[in-house]
Amino acid sequence: MNYREESLKLHAQWRGKIEVVPRVGVDTREKLSLAYTPGVAQPCLAIRDDPEKSFELTRRWNTVPVVTDGTAVLGLGDIGPEAGMPVMEGKCALFKAFGGVDAIPLCIRSKDPEEIVRTIELLAGSFGGINLEDISAPRCFEIERRLKEDLDIPVFHDDQHGTAVVTAAALLNALRIVPKRVEELEVVINGAGAAGIAIAKFLLQLGVGGVTLCDSKGIICAGDERLNAVKREIAEVTNLRRMKGGLADAMKGADVFIGVSVANCVTKEMVRSMAPQPIVFTCANPTPEIAREDALAAGAAVVGTGSSEKPNQINNVLVFPGLFRGALDVRARDINFEMMLAASKAIAACVSDEALCSDYILPYAYDLSAHEAVAKAVAEAARRTGVAKI
Amino acid sequence: MNYREESLKLHAQWRGKIEVVPRVGVDTREKLSLAYTPGVAQPCLAIRDDPEKSFELTRRWNTVPVVTDGTAVLGLGDIGPEAGMPVMEGKCALFKAFGGVDAIPLCIRSKDPEEIVRTIELLAGSFGGINLEDISAPRCFEIERRLKEDLDIPVFHDDQHGTAVVTAAALLNALRIVPKRVEELEVVINGAGAAGIAIAKFLLQLGVGGVTLCDSKGIICAGDERLNAVKREIAEVTNLRRMKGGLADAMKGADVFIGVSVANCVTKEMVRSMAPQPIVFTCANPTPEIAREDALAAGAAVVGTGSSEKPNQINNVLVFPGLFRGALDVRARDINFEMMLAASKAIAACVSDEALCSDYILPYAYDLSAHEAVAKAVAEAARRTGVAKI
Repeated sequence: MNYREESLKLHAQWRGKIEVVPRVGVDTREKLSLAYTPGVAQPCLAIRDDPEKSFELTRRWNTVPVVTDGTAVLGLGDIGPEAGMPVMEGKCALFKAFGGVDAIPLCIRSKDPEEIVRTIELLAGSFGGINLEDISAPRCFEIERRLKEDLDIPVFHDDQHGTAVVTAAALLNALRIVPKRVEELEVVINGAGAAGIAIAKFLLQLGVGGVTLCDSKGIICAGDERLNAVKREIAEVTNLRRMKGGLADAMKGADVFIGVSVANCVTKEMVRSMAPQPIVFTCANPTPEIAREDALAAGAAVVGTGSSEKPNQINNVLVFPGLFRGALDVRARDINFEMMLAASKAIAACVSDEALCSDYILPYAYDLSAHEAVAKAVAEAARRTGVAKI
Repeated sequence: MNYREESLKLHAQWRGKIEVVPRVGVDTREKLSLAYTPGVAQPCLAIRDDPEKSFELTRRWNTVPVVTDGTAVLGLGDIGPEAGMPVMEGKCALFKAFGGVDAIPLCIRSKDPEEIVRTIELLAGSFGGINLEDISAPRCFEIERRLKEDLDIPVFHDDQHGTAVVTAAALLNALRIVPKRVEELEVVINGAGAAGIAIAKFLLQLGVGGVTLCDSKGIICAGDERLNAVKREIAEVTNLRRMKGGLADAMKGADVFIGVSVANCVTKEMVRSMAPQPIVFTCANPTPEIAREDALAAGAAVVGTGSSEKPNQINNVLVFPGLFRGALDVRARDINFEMMLAASKAIAACVSDEALCSDYILPYAYDLSAHEAVAKAVAEAARRTGVAKI
């Protein structure tokens, strides 16, 4: 099937992938008087006296906006806020289907971090959490950082952390096939946008031996004056041997390659140059860094991809519905590393020893039990780390 | 029933009067690939090339935020943005139940018109129209004016125009009982907030003989230096005899009294001082300007109220669902006077000659056929006046 052409046709038929429905009847005078005036005055006054009651008396507790400025949508780049809407709506449908979360798309007609932050802060009283989506780097880092500082509801940039969490889950399960220890892994990440930077940070927190990050100009190395602030920061803690050179240089002897970059930038040679039993995640979409078949032919022990057509799709759909479900259930004031790590481990644990093989390292995105496991683990981690309000 | 206490209990049970649900399946790999990646790239690109296509390929065409800053909620005043949420949610439930419109509550944590306008403008690409709600006067006038100028989707401040439209409908039907002509009516409006000002403007456009507006200090009269800009403007076209004095003075000899003000400010004497067969609308909530029974005892020919417990509730629930339904159906770029007048007339026409009596001048708020009639009339008026895009 040509998914893209078929999808366009379906979108024109659907005219929207979500809708808002009432949860209460309003079809008699009495019901109207209870759900609306005059009865509604009482819950309003209760919230006036204690704004936290908005989590108990309205849908705020379960509602999350999927916010974008349209600058980094899928692999399509800066296509504008309205053009991001089909993705945001799709995400909202997934939020409900897999996490029971009421999500609404909000596209913002500004690329100014200051304005984006301010807009979201002004609206935060309507929501139980904030999901940032498809905002380009490096602006996404500042926007998320400021929102996390200022708001006491969870803020989560899915392109960064959703990707990091599911990639870590895939890596944890790959290590059940390739007998190496996390602490000895040398990981090369190609792509230093939102996803690449977040994966690097996450894997370092997870305790991997070393991470080397590459961007389109090659290996990112501390001391390079041309790097932006975010890359400078990550350069301090990656590539500790201070290698210089290109991606091919970085990959020599590495245990793991993670591509969140562009099509066809990895050759069979480069895979062959890696350490024995290399783990290769080629997540560029729609065309990967190297075709799965080529990576396998070059000796990769486990290959993960970004494609729903191939085994081992490393899909952050596995993360955000359950993660927010768990965070909302305990009214977490933040989403911290421990909660994200709990999500990674929960996803990994969904694949039993019997089922696990090099062609099946992750549960399917539509596996409801995986989302439930994530929600439970995240809620527990929030309680354990003291960010749960209830 | 004690609606307020019962409503508080129900709100705690409901935990939200609306929810967001998917309109598409995502429970198989294929469905996911069509509703989300990779298929969704194609509708995104179609909208990138023509942002208007967001009305065809997403839910934008049918989605309206109910936006408040919480400064003038019901009769409760400035209770804060979160505390306005139960009303906004109720409104969203009514939008869908009566108009098929997908509405979401957005409360804004700012009282600065500049920030409120900017926030809404930045989000406008997500929506087919904007419903402003419970924003205090005079800020609401500036906010609405600027949004109407800047946006090419309909903007509607319900407290102003919803109230004006349904009040005009009530008046039109009252005149089917009291044989007076619109052009000869002398109307006194008590309350010069959002509703009072909007009703005054609407009735003048409708062609009533004269309008006199009172606020808490008495009759509003041109030349009074203490008036704010909005009151100065309305003073130019009302009270043409330049009366001074209090509400009692204004009501002497008037044909119609419309109260959108405070409890118990009108006496039987004042009603007796009006012209023969006076029409009295006492819409203050929860306690009216004068009890319906007292107004009738003092000779009122028709009494309308703001209460769902009494006959002739003048309820703007009759307006906004159908009005937006009609505007969205033809993708109106504005909501103009002709569309609002069409809504008034459509509401009035829902009461047949047989059914019409002094105790039944308006259809019930939950009468679906009334909402359908409003939608149809509004869409036609939009087409006729050239603001319909389709």
